[in-house]
Amino acid sequence: MTTDPAFAELTTLLKRTHTLGTVAELLGWDEQVNLPPGGAEQRAAQHAAVAEVHHAAASAGRIGALLGALEAGAGGLTPDEQLVVTHARKDYERATKLPAEFVREKAAQSSRGYHAWVRAKAADDFASFVPVLEKNVELAKREAAYLGWSGREYDYMLDKHDPGLTAVAVDRLFGELKSELVPLVRAITASPTAGRAKAAETTLRGFPVEGQRAFLREVTEQIGFDYERGRIDVSLHPFCSGTGSDVRMTTRFKVDEPLDSLFASIHETGHGLYEQGLPAAQFGTALGQHAGMAVHESQSRLWENQVARSRGFWRNVEPRLRALFPTQTAGLTAEELYLAVNGVEPTLVRVEADEVTYNLHIILRFEMEKKLFNGELAVRDLPAAWRAASREIVGLAPATDRAGVLQDVHWSDGAFGYFPSYCLGNLLAAQLWYRALTLRPGLEEEFARGDFSWLLAWLRAEVHTQGRRFDALELARRVTGEELSPRAFLRYLRERYGALYLN
Amino acid sequence: MTTDPAFAELTTLLKRTHTLGTVAELLGWDEQVNLPPGGAEQRAAQHAAVAEVHHAAASAGRIGALLGALEAGAGGLTPDEQLVVTHARKDYERATKLPAEFVREKAAQSSRGYHAWVRAKAADDFASFVPVLEKNVELAKREAAYLGWSGREYDYMLDKHDPGLTAVAVDRLFGELKSELVPLVRAITASPTAGRAKAAETTLRGFPVEGQRAFLREVTEQIGFDYERGRIDVSLHPFCSGTGSDVRMTTRFKVDEPLDSLFASIHETGHGLYEQGLPAAQFGTALGQHAGMAVHESQSRLWENQVARSRGFWRNVEPRLRALFPTQTAGLTAEELYLAVNGVEPTLVRVEADEVTYNLHIILRFEMEKKLFNGELAVRDLPAAWRAASREIVGLAPATDRAGVLQDVHWSDGAFGYFPSYCLGNLLAAQLWYRALTLRPGLEEEFARGDFSWLLAWLRAEVHTQGRRFDALELARRVTGEELSPRAFLRYLRERYGALYLN
Repeated sequence: MTTDPAFAELTTLLKRTHTLGTVAELLGWDEQVNLPPGGAEQRAAQHAAVAEVHHAAASAGRIGALLGALEAGAGGLTPDEQLVVTHARKDYERATKLPAEFVREKAAQSSRGYHAWVRAKAADDFASFVPVLEKNVELAKREAAYLGWSGREYDYMLDKHDPGLTAVAVDRLFGELKSELVPLVRAITASPTAGRAKAAETTLRGFPVEGQRAFLREVTEQIGFDYERGRIDVSLHPFCSGTGSDVRMTTRFKVDEPLDSLFASIHETGHGLYEQGLPAAQFGTALGQHAGMAVHESQSRLWENQVARSRGFWRNVEPRLRALFPTQTAGLTAEELYLAVNGVEPTLVRVEADEVTYNLHIILRFEMEKKLFNGELAVRDLPAAWRAASREIVGLAPATDRAGVLQDVHWSDGAFGYFPSYCLGNLLAAQLWYRALTLRPGLEEEFARGDFSWLLAWLRAEVHTQGRRFDALELARRVTGEELSPRAFLRYLRERYGALYLN
Repeated sequence: MTTDPAFAELTTLLKRTHTLGTVAELLGWDEQVNLPPGGAEQRAAQHAAVAEVHHAAASAGRIGALLGALEAGAGGLTPDEQLVVTHARKDYERATKLPAEFVREKAAQSSRGYHAWVRAKAADDFASFVPVLEKNVELAKREAAYLGWSGREYDYMLDKHDPGLTAVAVDRLFGELKSELVPLVRAITASPTAGRAKAAETTLRGFPVEGQRAFLREVTEQIGFDYERGRIDVSLHPFCSGTGSDVRMTTRFKVDEPLDSLFASIHETGHGLYEQGLPAAQFGTALGQHAGMAVHESQSRLWENQVARSRGFWRNVEPRLRALFPTQTAGLTAEELYLAVNGVEPTLVRVEADEVTYNLHIILRFEMEKKLFNGELAVRDLPAAWRAASREIVGLAPATDRAGVLQDVHWSDGAFGYFPSYCLGNLLAAQLWYRALTLRPGLEEEFARGDFSWLLAWLRAEVHTQGRRFDALELARRVTGEELSPRAFLRYLRERYGALYLN
């Protein structure tokens, strides 16, 4: 198809950059899954060295020259090629504006920060984490400055994860969401059903790890994760990394919380399906890249919540769960098991939160980040501010920093501005879900038969294979015909949880 | 200490090259331990990309300029600095003579070759492996040619793993060894004790993997492997990779061959101890590099054989083995267990060979490699030649290529000339062992108490912390006062196995 040799050469250079990026990602995966305790400093040096060569590849002058030539003769490009050039220009500008020394410093700091966080969390010692976090904030601000966002540093962090997003826009969406969410949570937790859900969940104890591993492997494979092109391991904080033919998810196991590892795994499966569904032939170009973190989270949350907490899904998996764990599940009726899966209870820890209260945790983090970046809050004052905000927004204040401000990995490697993507992903997931149901009203019946193929094929067509064509806001418009908003998500909560708790 | 800024800058550049090399090594470790089947092509691309940036770092013009300046003013350097400069020059010459395109091609081919070998071995399909191996031989010859070894390609491959080695020298050592080894093997296998050893080994069945894992972890830790700076995993072919603070060994488990995974693990522990004992502050320079593959193998074989097959060692571990596996070991007396550990029986598979017959496998491979490189043997004729030579040298001919020419991983990634290092390592290990015994006659009594600290400290001082100061031939001379030869090794076999089999 392509006749322009400059475009072919550009593609080769972008693929090479991409490949070095996948090496950096593997270093990160290995760090959280395999690294011996003593290896942290060496890993930091490896991160720094790879970040440096990755940055050199991404900012190679030859890319700039090719882009210039292709932009000058843009008339001859196909729309797809034009898209590649547009995004490559954006990435190239970002790469060339960051000095190599800064990139190296940030990569090494990100790795050190992770290990400092692990230690600080284990010891419940926020004080030891203060200098790391201060450094991370400073690096984030310098990065924003290099890229021309001085004075709008937090907008930069948001835009980095989801293009076009601003703190003002997020504030508006979150305000709308919070005003309905807080009373809904109050109504649900006041319902007598809440106690029954809690009691049901409490009976699910003593699930041996090997059985849990077999169960989640079967479930994630049935959903569509391709284990010939991926794997699942154990880490402190579940995540998904890699792309295409080598997608690596992690989970964790607690003998007395079988639903935790199951839903963490399904969440990561949603990310993994997206990465396995990107067009492999286009890796390195915008046609083979994901469309931002909100879209990524929409995929993980759609499978984790709309799908895997549905009645149809549980009609399918319940018999297998009972067969694998007959004694552990003997005390529960089907309805009680389904209640346990859809329990609602405010919690201190985001990753343990149900989907009704989950976004309150995001709103809390957004408030903290905003204040950290606009100078209203100093790093050392975070624990107290967190406790106060947690009491106000989530309804609970943590007794320890480990269960409070130290709970999440994100800030340890400087991923500020990421949290809002989770919430936007929730909103987008609900919009996609209702659109899918409109096109395929019998979807839950298919789940009950263990058939997820229509939904996966639809997401492949509408989202995965689109690469980076449409950001979250555009994708919402294009696929669902509506602007991204909390409406579908609130409707979904009222329908699923209202039926369970408020009747 | 160092006042010369050029030397400091050189060290920084060498360290950076080293760090990129450790990334390449991690890619290789991960490939054999974790890679999903579909990920092979992506991994090949990653290897190629990292090899390219590693090569660029190793051949950076700035290194050449610094070397030139330091060599010109060499009078001001300390002896250690002089050593660093000398070896850095050697490495720099090697790096600059290989074109970047060749390095990329070889790295990608090495990764593809590994996966082709895995498939060919599983399917017992040598024909599918022919083009890969032909390509590997061709690449090896081209590499030799680039480096000025045209017409002496196999000498180049030998020198690459152990500097100064030639096919003629190896021929002489192997000839001397073979002339005593073949009659010794014949005498041992004709002994009635051989049958008792075999019978004893045959009763060791049904060792659950989890128990084996716990046992070898305990044993390798007691010997001195530091799991804070390393780990052990499972792969098809046991190996050790990484250095310093992140040393990764692999083993494999067979329920009915508990001694296989134990001794494989102790072998890799020997490599691991060496890597953990190199001077970390000097990584990237000759002071922090190992001294060649024969020295490396001397460390693995010393721990695996001289130490872990000694009576003292078994007085220490036997009670723990029996405690972990009471029923599986109940049928054996202490003497029978010790015989099982020191069984001698010609086998088709090198990695399953006892230490008496082991070197016959090396001599076989050396014969094949010599002929492959001097044009006497075509790749497609290897299986028949292997069978004939195996019958003549080892005394057995394989019925399948899987148990014959396809059994080893080495050729799949072009590691020709490596096998002789195993044998030279055996010879050096025996020389080091007798030297240690001379200095510390009660060594075995210490092993019986679980105390390996003197031996490890002595190896740290004489070998590990010496870095790349002395190659195998120099090290033998320096530490043992004798030239490297088969004499100590043959004495060791006669003493240990003669006492068991020929009395």
